[in-house]
Amino acid sequence: MTLKEQALEKHYEWKGKIEVVSRTPIQNKEQLSLAYTPGVAEPCLEIAREPMKVFELTRRQNLVAVITDGTAVLGLGDIGPEAAMPVMEGKCALFKEFADVDAFPICIDSKDPQVIIDTVALISKSFGGINLEDISAPRCFEIEAELKKRCDIPVFHDDQHGTAIVVSAALLNAMKVVDKKMGELEIVINGAGAAGISIAKMLIQIGFGNVILCDIKGAIYEGADWLNPAQAQMAKVTNRDKKTGTLADVMKGADVFVGVSRPGLVTGDMVRSMAEGSIVFPMANPTPEIMPEEALEAGAAVVGTGRSDYPNQINNVLAFPGIFKGALSVMATDITESMKMAAARAIASVVKPEQLTARYILPYAFDKEVVAAVASAVAQAAREEGLSRL
Amino acid sequence: MTLKEQALEKHYEWKGKIEVVSRTPIQNKEQLSLAYTPGVAEPCLEIAREPMKVFELTRRQNLVAVITDGTAVLGLGDIGPEAAMPVMEGKCALFKEFADVDAFPICIDSKDPQVIIDTVALISKSFGGINLEDISAPRCFEIEAELKKRCDIPVFHDDQHGTAIVVSAALLNAMKVVDKKMGELEIVINGAGAAGISIAKMLIQIGFGNVILCDIKGAIYEGADWLNPAQAQMAKVTNRDKKTGTLADVMKGADVFVGVSRPGLVTGDMVRSMAEGSIVFPMANPTPEIMPEEALEAGAAVVGTGRSDYPNQINNVLAFPGIFKGALSVMATDITESMKMAAARAIASVVKPEQLTARYILPYAFDKEVVAAVASAVAQAAREEGLSRL
Repeated sequence: MTLKEQALEKHYEWKGKIEVVSRTPIQNKEQLSLAYTPGVAEPCLEIAREPMKVFELTRRQNLVAVITDGTAVLGLGDIGPEAAMPVMEGKCALFKEFADVDAFPICIDSKDPQVIIDTVALISKSFGGINLEDISAPRCFEIEAELKKRCDIPVFHDDQHGTAIVVSAALLNAMKVVDKKMGELEIVINGAGAAGISIAKMLIQIGFGNVILCDIKGAIYEGADWLNPAQAQMAKVTNRDKKTGTLADVMKGADVFVGVSRPGLVTGDMVRSMAEGSIVFPMANPTPEIMPEEALEAGAAVVGTGRSDYPNQINNVLAFPGIFKGALSVMATDITESMKMAAARAIASVVKPEQLTARYILPYAFDKEVVAAVASAVAQAAREEGLSRL
Repeated sequence: MTLKEQALEKHYEWKGKIEVVSRTPIQNKEQLSLAYTPGVAEPCLEIAREPMKVFELTRRQNLVAVITDGTAVLGLGDIGPEAAMPVMEGKCALFKEFADVDAFPICIDSKDPQVIIDTVALISKSFGGINLEDISAPRCFEIEAELKKRCDIPVFHDDQHGTAIVVSAALLNAMKVVDKKMGELEIVINGAGAAGISIAKMLIQIGFGNVILCDIKGAIYEGADWLNPAQAQMAKVTNRDKKTGTLADVMKGADVFVGVSRPGLVTGDMVRSMAEGSIVFPMANPTPEIMPEEALEAGAAVVGTGRSDYPNQINNVLAFPGIFKGALSVMATDITESMKMAAARAIASVVKPEQLTARYILPYAFDKEVVAAVASAVAQAAREEGLSRL
């Protein structure tokens, strides 16, 4: 049986990957009168008097909504809200299994950004955090930005920030392996959609060096007349030397390649043209922009992909469970740049200096230390920014 | 410690009464690749090809949303969406404990019926059923009616129909105890809000006899100039003899009293004025319109209240868990009048003829037979109406 067949069979067998259970037994009159009427009136009145008590008296304290409109599901594209649900349930199962965070999947039956924003805002008081998922660009930027303003809880689009955080963590450690300096890296990112732009923003924010974003038409530079608004915005803060040309052109002499594009776009020669001690993160899924063997043969010093069957898997699961766990633990009102950077540093720090090699720059997905380290760093960053409500 | 103090303490201890858990272990790469990427793409594609498969491949098959706007919470009134959450979580815990149905609480941060309708419709594809809860009248009528049109899953306002179903069940059995005939009962209902109107509709539908609805101004009759639109509608099908006067006036000679109003509104003399073999259901909570002892002393033949410390508790929990379980079991598109009547008859039937007495007209809340009987009757009714999608 192939993996595909096996996965489908398992999904029929599971009858859903999540389940809502009761945390209190209701087997007799006394238990009923405490968990429901008449006893339940007391916690209701307590929250009516002091609204923040809802975080202590209900599951809101540990609860994330995983929300999609089904427009950019995996590599499958716009398959609609219902067909997106297996992914959303899977994400919720990951939240629980990795971080003991309760997560509940909701699909919204509209593609209109304003309708999506209104709907999520109107149900947001049921949750402690909002994880946006698989919403297509550029709509996802507007939706996330507006919801961050309207909601008093963290809103986080994982496809943008989750990947950016793990790439940042990978680069923090890879840089040490090749002994290059923060601020001096020349970084080429291929793919200028939601993920590529978000990675570029974060690498710049941390201060790794000069970033060049590439789209299918080549390097993005200020003044190019074919940019969409999000790309035009990025052109102002990237590509300092206003380089033009193809991906192959700008990869010459670069220190780092990050791919969030399509299989096979990068050749051995392109890697060979990079600076010595090059770092190559081809993350197209399931087949990378260049296969790890080929990149290494062409001289790459460190290679990381999205795949679990090669070393250095760049996997969002290293980030989102701990980020939400940390944010929820302090009743944070937002997930900010500094909280995301704290998460990246925490992920990188799980690999101890004496363990660090070209084949081990990131902790394994199932390393139990990761969630604890990320959650604690994110909570600490939230407190320092005054975004904790505890 | 009082019950109130104990309930509050327990709520702090529980940290929420529900929890979202994973139904699939994700402890290693293989499990991750089946439950999440890349395996999860297969069930997504299956649903994209055949949308109804979402009921087999995700938890939608067993999942109810418990939705409120917090405008009519218990006897507490409009305490807002957040303060309503302990009740909603309690209801979800009841769904799970009584019927193994997964239920998830959502509060909507708006009081505008149209906004509530749109929001619920937009998230409805995440669920197999919608249970509306604690939404004030007359807004609840419009919201339910509109959602029934817009959603392809059952929508059920429990405060209206749950009570009506259990009162109907109680009356089916009480009638046998006092040996009165279907169609010949004179029934007075005090309280003409959501619950009273819904009870009146259902008793008429089943054909118990003539119903007189009373409001604070007395008997409702066709042509009275002080009726709200919902009451004016009811005036057309109730009070055949166009009786006017106070509650005390219309109770004279009546066979049945149903109270969904306020404590202490009914006196012993009023019960004494009823026909012989009178059935009295004073359901104001926590203190009934008349205490059972007093009603019995005044000659009532059968008494039922909302209280668990007296015989014949008229409790919604006899209805909603089995109704949704039955509807979900056949992927029903609606919960109809005939499904509700089937539920009432099923509840009544759990009390066997040889067990039936004036003190035992309804099964106990924790009687395990109830859910099974109701679910099976509701599923059968749905199939007969062609509302099953299985």
